[in-house]
Amino acid sequence: MLYSDWTLSNNEYDPKERQARDALFSTGNGYFGIRGFFEEDNETIGANGGIYMTGVFGMGSYDAWEGKSSELCNLPNVLRVCISCNDEDIDGFSSISDFSQSLDMKKGVYARRYLWKTSDGRRLELCFERFASMHDIHRIGQRITIKALDKIDNLSVAALLDSDVTNLNLASGEPFPIQPGRNHFISRNVRTNALSVTLDDPDSTVLNFAQQTFAYLNGKAVTGRITTNSKACGTAYTCSLNKNEVFTLEKIIFAVTSLDESLNPEQEIEDFLSKPASYEQELARHCSALSDKWRVADIEIDTNTTDLTIVRYNIYQLLCVCPEHTDRFGIGARGLTGEMYEGCVFWDNEIFVLPFFLYTNPSAARKQLMFRYHTLDAARRHAKNNWFEGAMYPWQVDRKGVEQTPVNCGAFYAIHITGDIAFTICRYWELTQDDEFMLSYGAEILYETARFWVSRCDYNSFDGRYHILSVRGPNEYDVYVNDNAFTNMMAVYNLKSVNSVFKKLKERHPDEFDKLFKRLGASHEEISKFCEVADKLNIPYNAQMDLYLEDDTYLIRRKLDLKRAKPTKKRIIDSTLPYEALPLYQVTKQADTVLLCCLFPHLFTKRQKENVYKFYEPRTAHDSSLSYSPHGILAADIGLHEEAYRYFKESAYLDVNDLQLNTINGLHFANFGGTWQIVFHGFAGISASNGKLYIKPALPTQWNRISLHCLFLKQTVKITIDKSSIAVKRLDGDTPLTVCVNNQDYLIDDKPLTIDY
Amino acid sequence: MLYSDWTLSNNEYDPKERQARDALFSTGNGYFGIRGFFEEDNETIGANGGIYMTGVFGMGSYDAWEGKSSELCNLPNVLRVCISCNDEDIDGFSSISDFSQSLDMKKGVYARRYLWKTSDGRRLELCFERFASMHDIHRIGQRITIKALDKIDNLSVAALLDSDVTNLNLASGEPFPIQPGRNHFISRNVRTNALSVTLDDPDSTVLNFAQQTFAYLNGKAVTGRITTNSKACGTAYTCSLNKNEVFTLEKIIFAVTSLDESLNPEQEIEDFLSKPASYEQELARHCSALSDKWRVADIEIDTNTTDLTIVRYNIYQLLCVCPEHTDRFGIGARGLTGEMYEGCVFWDNEIFVLPFFLYTNPSAARKQLMFRYHTLDAARRHAKNNWFEGAMYPWQVDRKGVEQTPVNCGAFYAIHITGDIAFTICRYWELTQDDEFMLSYGAEILYETARFWVSRCDYNSFDGRYHILSVRGPNEYDVYVNDNAFTNMMAVYNLKSVNSVFKKLKERHPDEFDKLFKRLGASHEEISKFCEVADKLNIPYNAQMDLYLEDDTYLIRRKLDLKRAKPTKKRIIDSTLPYEALPLYQVTKQADTVLLCCLFPHLFTKRQKENVYKFYEPRTAHDSSLSYSPHGILAADIGLHEEAYRYFKESAYLDVNDLQLNTINGLHFANFGGTWQIVFHGFAGISASNGKLYIKPALPTQWNRISLHCLFLKQTVKITIDKSSIAVKRLDGDTPLTVCVNNQDYLIDDKPLTIDY
Repeated sequence: MLYSDWTLSNNEYDPKERQARDALFSTGNGYFGIRGFFEEDNETIGANGGIYMTGVFGMGSYDAWEGKSSELCNLPNVLRVCISCNDEDIDGFSSISDFSQSLDMKKGVYARRYLWKTSDGRRLELCFERFASMHDIHRIGQRITIKALDKIDNLSVAALLDSDVTNLNLASGEPFPIQPGRNHFISRNVRTNALSVTLDDPDSTVLNFAQQTFAYLNGKAVTGRITTNSKACGTAYTCSLNKNEVFTLEKIIFAVTSLDESLNPEQEIEDFLSKPASYEQELARHCSALSDKWRVADIEIDTNTTDLTIVRYNIYQLLCVCPEHTDRFGIGARGLTGEMYEGCVFWDNEIFVLPFFLYTNPSAARKQLMFRYHTLDAARRHAKNNWFEGAMYPWQVDRKGVEQTPVNCGAFYAIHITGDIAFTICRYWELTQDDEFMLSYGAEILYETARFWVSRCDYNSFDGRYHILSVRGPNEYDVYVNDNAFTNMMAVYNLKSVNSVFKKLKERHPDEFDKLFKRLGASHEEISKFCEVADKLNIPYNAQMDLYLEDDTYLIRRKLDLKRAKPTKKRIIDSTLPYEALPLYQVTKQADTVLLCCLFPHLFTKRQKENVYKFYEPRTAHDSSLSYSPHGILAADIGLHEEAYRYFKESAYLDVNDLQLNTINGLHFANFGGTWQIVFHGFAGISASNGKLYIKPALPTQWNRISLHCLFLKQTVKITIDKSSIAVKRLDGDTPLTVCVNNQDYLIDDKPLTIDY
Repeated sequence: MLYSDWTLSNNEYDPKERQARDALFSTGNGYFGIRGFFEEDNETIGANGGIYMTGVFGMGSYDAWEGKSSELCNLPNVLRVCISCNDEDIDGFSSISDFSQSLDMKKGVYARRYLWKTSDGRRLELCFERFASMHDIHRIGQRITIKALDKIDNLSVAALLDSDVTNLNLASGEPFPIQPGRNHFISRNVRTNALSVTLDDPDSTVLNFAQQTFAYLNGKAVTGRITTNSKACGTAYTCSLNKNEVFTLEKIIFAVTSLDESLNPEQEIEDFLSKPASYEQELARHCSALSDKWRVADIEIDTNTTDLTIVRYNIYQLLCVCPEHTDRFGIGARGLTGEMYEGCVFWDNEIFVLPFFLYTNPSAARKQLMFRYHTLDAARRHAKNNWFEGAMYPWQVDRKGVEQTPVNCGAFYAIHITGDIAFTICRYWELTQDDEFMLSYGAEILYETARFWVSRCDYNSFDGRYHILSVRGPNEYDVYVNDNAFTNMMAVYNLKSVNSVFKKLKERHPDEFDKLFKRLGASHEEISKFCEVADKLNIPYNAQMDLYLEDDTYLIRRKLDLKRAKPTKKRIIDSTLPYEALPLYQVTKQADTVLLCCLFPHLFTKRQKENVYKFYEPRTAHDSSLSYSPHGILAADIGLHEEAYRYFKESAYLDVNDLQLNTINGLHFANFGGTWQIVFHGFAGISASNGKLYIKPALPTQWNRISLHCLFLKQTVKITIDKSSIAVKRLDGDTPLTVCVNNQDYLIDDKPLTIDY
């Protein structure tokens, strides 16, 4: 892999790695996600492409907790192209040479190039590029350039919209045997350069696609002919090329679905087809829109081009996946780059991914939280169906907010997600002071989730404490435990937040607050109950060791020989011990109490943080992509610089190096967010609490300076950190900001400030 | 259902119930198990028959803990018959009348009868009967009698050996979607009235079948013609019948497999075919052999014919399933009457089924325990694979003793089976004083299982006790707990047994004992360790309540509203709450501490037994067929006569009434053993301890007298109990026996004794 500032590229063609690289070279615009697949591939799996849309699901293979399960739907392959040269199809890749593929993250363009030889030795150079427009998210641009290095009598290129696809199903997160990928289209309507399909989902969602194609021979337009069959449509071109002549195909795709807020999708398709588009123009608009995003999102690292490029790659994928056009879905564990976990949204969304948006694009973060508000009724039903009160957010959700984890795979235990959502709502409010959101939506979620916790806690008359029994924390190797520290602390935060948020809302907006109070059927007695349960909820802790405990039995379990349990990169449960054996051992799948220290950096003493790190780190298998970044952040916090940098490397290069052995099934978005967090919360040491921005740098020795932007209380701040000083500059807004460095507060107004540390 | 002493019969033909009745009217001889299916049925599922053999497995559908899973193989349908009348096939049952089916348990014959009408209104009376010979277990007899009630021009009857079958797969115990039943024959060899098939199991087991058929018209022999195709062979007969004329087909089937100890199966087949067999003769020999079994096994109840019949039914099925010809397999959860649980053996075998054999046929019990000895190496491997020492018996085993529960379905936790096997070995020895067995086999199992327990226990320095973490007791609704009372007490018994058994063996057989000691690599230090762990192993108990606790958290869980959780007969987890939710509640799937009180009746005080019953009984869902009988036994023990009788009814009539809604998948053999135990241990109140036979009668008010036999210390005892007295008579042997009634010992020699109670 080659790293050069803004470009990640690969010059090796390895058929075994191809589909993992397809994921790695994904691009997107929050509406579309497009794997880096080879559009000219005619093999079964390759011809399926790999294009997804936010919130577009087909019917899955098992019973979910309500109705049938959902799975992210592989869309028609709208980039499909059939190329033949003197009647030889270019769809085998055994004899290609000079291969390269690259992602230009500044421009948001994925490009691919190789030389191909006909059976009689004539050579072609083929170049492909594509982008999903950040300017008009309904559009994708594609350009294919074919140069004859020898004379070619007959080149044929057909640019298609092809609905003859199934899901890729490269592997499955289900406990069932892997099944062939499903086709989700129950009907198709194929027209001239336009295609509609109806999905097998409960809403019978309709997806409409159209394309405009333009072809040139040495820059001169070539006319094509319409080609249509029962599943695909497009335009085909034929020409002959003398040596060094160039054929170019440019194509603009337009899509609109019945899930969009469009009143007349069919009219939109007609409108698109009636107004000529231009690839160059679309590309320029796209680059400009992406450039706007980079302005705040970019992190500059002065010294190390490789690290700089990989940090940009992590951020780029977050920019590509963020659905700014809708508040009806979140970001799935694998985003729009693969089908693992059925494309569903988990706690990753709030705890790992959203911090990036909270600090760089709060309005995008708000939309993600609105998705949780829109599915609050589903969470209420979920609580009721499980005999609890209030709202219980499911562990794994599709667009409807319905639990998608197969029954009896632990979703009943994984309740910390409910606290994670409440926590992130409070974090959003703290960073933005968006009272309108809190009054209209956020407070309702906080109140309903607090009701859930009260009904989920059990009072134990033996010790006079509340307990949360049968629960699975982030450390999923527990199966289930009683009193998981992470879950209980998130529950306490959630329960207490109602009182503190309500006080402030009442002060600032007494009338709206009264309406809210009535709307919720709230009562002071109930809020007192929230506080009582929070105060008496048991947090497992060993005073002698000054150590927060994973759960109430972690200390009495036997030690695990991690070298024996995990001799290779493979997860323990895929190599040496069955999953069900693990509760016998002191083993942590992924950061858990470590993560708590990251989420509440101002709550624990340094000694407690050190104790947590020293005790759990050697007991952690990192059998999840969600483990490296919290370890990196906490290591930076407690001054373990080399460890912090090591965890940064594990996190930042996770997909590039396929550390989890499953990049093929999609990129790890929580980890992208985590990488950003190591740099932002860890190395830059930035956190926010009580209206102040704390900066406690912990630069790796390998770096000299980093420079980044963030939004805090609706104002953009530029922060540059070198080995000894912090430069802070407010770029907009007019409210003075308090920055705290080494326990000293600094007021930032129009003037930039440099603080030595 | 009709009950008349020795016959259970049904006169209603209900197509919806037919396959459950197929299971109910199963018969067998320990070698074969034959469902009561309709041999003339040509419909797909019906033509598959439903015949199984002890230990004959095909390849299953998932990965077991070693290699592929196994499943009980549905054999070729050797009872298959094709009947047509004037070219109309008799294979639809929509217009039959005067239907009856009955099981004569004294003779061991299943008979079926009905009237059938051709489309032009001509009537036939058809009678079918079959038996699996108890005299020569390789033989099955079948007789079909067809009487013309109107003139029939053309009756055609073909008696086949048909290998065109798949497994029935009526439902599946797997967590996977139900799959079509598999065919397990990888090759077939079809000859004249003989058929061999090779299975898809790892041993490529070969099954050989042959048949002799005889047909008569009004008692006069009719000649048939050979019929053969690629999968089936047989003999076909054609005749015409005047009104009231009778056609009879008699058939003897012979089978021998490569798993039998036969040196030359093919020769045996030839020998069978060369010597004419006679249905009447086979039947007479079979009845005589069965009669021998009934002599000890029968229980006479004077007053209640229905109860008498159903008790005999429960015993009859135990006689039919018992594999006395081999010590290479045990009795599966559903015996040889269905495919649920893949035909595998569980703890049911030792704790529920074997007590019947321990007291009525100890040599059969010894064979079952020898199966555990033969799979001791598999149990050693299982321990090692799971990082433990000694021998860990798998939860669910096929013939090879390999864990068949799909991974991550809790088999890792269900370790009490290891203690259950050790417990039953000690019980066998106590009742038989079979020192040869203990020296050669039993002690080795006890020692290796004790080693397992030591490696499975964790010492906790906080309380100075040993604990067994992450364990699932008989109450499977726990998912897993720490310190399950049942598991821990069985472990203590197992650990302590080594010392006590070794002491006695050393006294009685010093030389053999020394050899044994060396062979095991035993040491006094290790035995001391067994005792130390046993002494310090935590048994959860609440002193204030004088109550043994299910586990260490049962008391702090929330109460479950059982009416809400189980509004119908359906199991909780099939109706209202997911399985994973249940550890949150005080709910017991099935008898657990109650069962402990039954297994150790002399260990607990009456008050402790009462407390256990009163506390757990209202918290028990009885979502297992293994729950009723322990409740019945304990209720009888503590004098709750009505409750004991109620539980007896639930247990005894469980399959007849399809209480668990899954009799279709096979009969509940643990429950048959449990029914016998309620009568024997509960109502008759018989137990054995320290060389004495205790009798503490608790007859239901509904019964006046029961009379039964049992073997104790190799001597047969007849015990008759009425409302106020116990008559004991030793039928053979010459050692005086001690019988204890109301704390008083009586010595029984040649003279019968009557004791008032």
